[in-house]
Amino acid sequence: MTKGMRRKAARIRGSGLPRITAGGMMEYIHGGDIYTYEGMTDFSVNINPFGPSGQVLEAVRTEAAHIGAYPDSRCRKLRCALAERYGISEENFIFGNGAAELIFSAAFAGRPRRAVLTAPSFAEYAMALEAAGCEVVYHYMEEEESFRLTERYMEELTEDVDMIFLCSPDNPSGQVIDLPLLDRIIGRCGELGIRAVIDQCFCEFLERSYSILPVEAVLDKPWVLLLRAFTKMHAMPGLRLGYGICSDRAFLEKMELVTQPWNVSVPAQAAGLAALSETERVQRTRAYVARERRRIEKELEHMGITYYPSAVNYILLYSRYDLSALLKEHNILIRDCSNYEGLRKGYYRIAVKMRKENDMLLKALREIYKEGTSGRL
Amino acid sequence: MTKGMRRKAARIRGSGLPRITAGGMMEYIHGGDIYTYEGMTDFSVNINPFGPSGQVLEAVRTEAAHIGAYPDSRCRKLRCALAERYGISEENFIFGNGAAELIFSAAFAGRPRRAVLTAPSFAEYAMALEAAGCEVVYHYMEEEESFRLTERYMEELTEDVDMIFLCSPDNPSGQVIDLPLLDRIIGRCGELGIRAVIDQCFCEFLERSYSILPVEAVLDKPWVLLLRAFTKMHAMPGLRLGYGICSDRAFLEKMELVTQPWNVSVPAQAAGLAALSETERVQRTRAYVARERRRIEKELEHMGITYYPSAVNYILLYSRYDLSALLKEHNILIRDCSNYEGLRKGYYRIAVKMRKENDMLLKALREIYKEGTSGRL
Repeated sequence: MTKGMRRKAARIRGSGLPRITAGGMMEYIHGGDIYTYEGMTDFSVNINPFGPSGQVLEAVRTEAAHIGAYPDSRCRKLRCALAERYGISEENFIFGNGAAELIFSAAFAGRPRRAVLTAPSFAEYAMALEAAGCEVVYHYMEEEESFRLTERYMEELTEDVDMIFLCSPDNPSGQVIDLPLLDRIIGRCGELGIRAVIDQCFCEFLERSYSILPVEAVLDKPWVLLLRAFTKMHAMPGLRLGYGICSDRAFLEKMELVTQPWNVSVPAQAAGLAALSETERVQRTRAYVARERRRIEKELEHMGITYYPSAVNYILLYSRYDLSALLKEHNILIRDCSNYEGLRKGYYRIAVKMRKENDMLLKALREIYKEGTSGRL
Repeated sequence: MTKGMRRKAARIRGSGLPRITAGGMMEYIHGGDIYTYEGMTDFSVNINPFGPSGQVLEAVRTEAAHIGAYPDSRCRKLRCALAERYGISEENFIFGNGAAELIFSAAFAGRPRRAVLTAPSFAEYAMALEAAGCEVVYHYMEEEESFRLTERYMEELTEDVDMIFLCSPDNPSGQVIDLPLLDRIIGRCGELGIRAVIDQCFCEFLERSYSILPVEAVLDKPWVLLLRAFTKMHAMPGLRLGYGICSDRAFLEKMELVTQPWNVSVPAQAAGLAALSETERVQRTRAYVARERRRIEKELEHMGITYYPSAVNYILLYSRYDLSALLKEHNILIRDCSNYEGLRKGYYRIAVKMRKENDMLLKALREIYKEGTSGRL
């Protein structure tokens, strides 16, 4: 990829979009399609390998008794608990049917004409912006820099930009934006009136929490919206619960106005509340995942597989083999990243799972690479 | 209300919108605010008084085990079961985080410039259209006609209209649109290229199901979108599950593009599937509710309370007393309808609940009216 290509104004192109199949139904473009591939070990989604806690499961079971009532449209109990946790005002929060919903409501509420996205990154930013009629400009992160955001990004922040999305830790690369750089980006956004959405949905997996923009940092920066979720660390993607933090109450209200009032279900609110008390479990998960990640990375290195050192619970790698297809033969599902803007065929994302599962994946990879070296692939 | 007022082009005004309170938080404008009024008997929401079935509750409890996986973004099992139930193609369905979400996605996907709404009716149509930047024109239904839609409505359907929402059975009035009139409305919409959204979320409470537009009727009318929900009859508002039926697959895909892919949770999909087999329970509920509704209406008549004969599980009534406040003293929550466009202070909606609860409400009303007659109110 040449430097000349690195900035490219373009309406979103085919690669990141759902494709209409012959039957007229949308094709699945994300990870976690266990409903097509039942019974496979799923390394394609990146959630806490321990799964949801007993406490969270219990909350869902107990809360079943209350599904006959509408959910609290303000998520008051959860709002109160989170405000206390972070030591900020309840008014600074917004809740979503997963953080994914908040990406859409931010795009629809902000009505940007032009937005800058980094590539590769989470595909839903582009989906949401495109849906809101926004022109998307991609800033391509370089493979030689392990897809990390660099100073080059500052050039993108010009008068004509209305909104940016940044993902840190990033998905699918697992890279964290350097805090001094992020501070400068946010400062520049403030000067230029650019709304900055910082997706931190994986931040709880970081060993070094100081590498992430703290919640308090946005209190005097109303143009910043932080996105966080219960999905990843608390392993409840099936329930849908995410939240945003922003000191611009008027903007949060605009987001609420483009969303139905009862967007967060009764079980999701209860599960979120239960999850909040799991601080010890979070620490244990973080340490376990970091250990396993390092182990997997070391093994990948031994096998000579190109990978991009990650800070969280998934690893982006490159292979000359069609790993997605080959691993399916081993009953393993991984995320083919070729449909990410800024990536191409050969990129895959694997989740860090439990030791035994990781061993299974590593064994399968070893076999594939052995066959490959012997010329049989 | 004079005839001259009955058509009024207006951006949505204060009455139907959330109001910002001094604290900066949105005020609650809907029914079911049991989170503010804990412990009260809630006649303000209009769902099946029997509550969710054991089967549905069991599905939620069992499905707790699967919240660690992302929901099927295509709701395949539920889609297949519903397609079979209605005998139409799976491609004709779209699923929402409650029907309320589909109201918003229809507005954002359709991008209408001008839409006609009836008043009084469900407030979320206006909220969604306004959020999508659409001008809303109200067609006021007359009190003297029990807020029923009449021939007068045909005059609203002009070249400059892009979208209409109709609710049948209507909320809050419980009125059903005459099928010959609805047929003519839909025909005219087809001629003029108007997208017609017909909200049938309460249709399962109707004793005479032939009074509702059948699903098959939309197969050759791609400009019609039917909305239905599990919320009301299956009493699962806390789970959020609604669906749309439309033969314009391209429009459904536009709706999917303005929505996150995982909008319907794992428990909601499972509960929906479980609810589909409850045909006998639905019949029993329908008969019970109809009986109780007639009993309540008769009692209201005895007390001299003005009400509008309903076809479903709630009744709109008018009182010169501040019933909402007075019933709170009896620990009863009802829906104050004064913030509905087209209504004013004095209108209230009560749900038809279980016999014992209905007796409690009727007793409280009797006391209030007795006090009122004796001049003490």
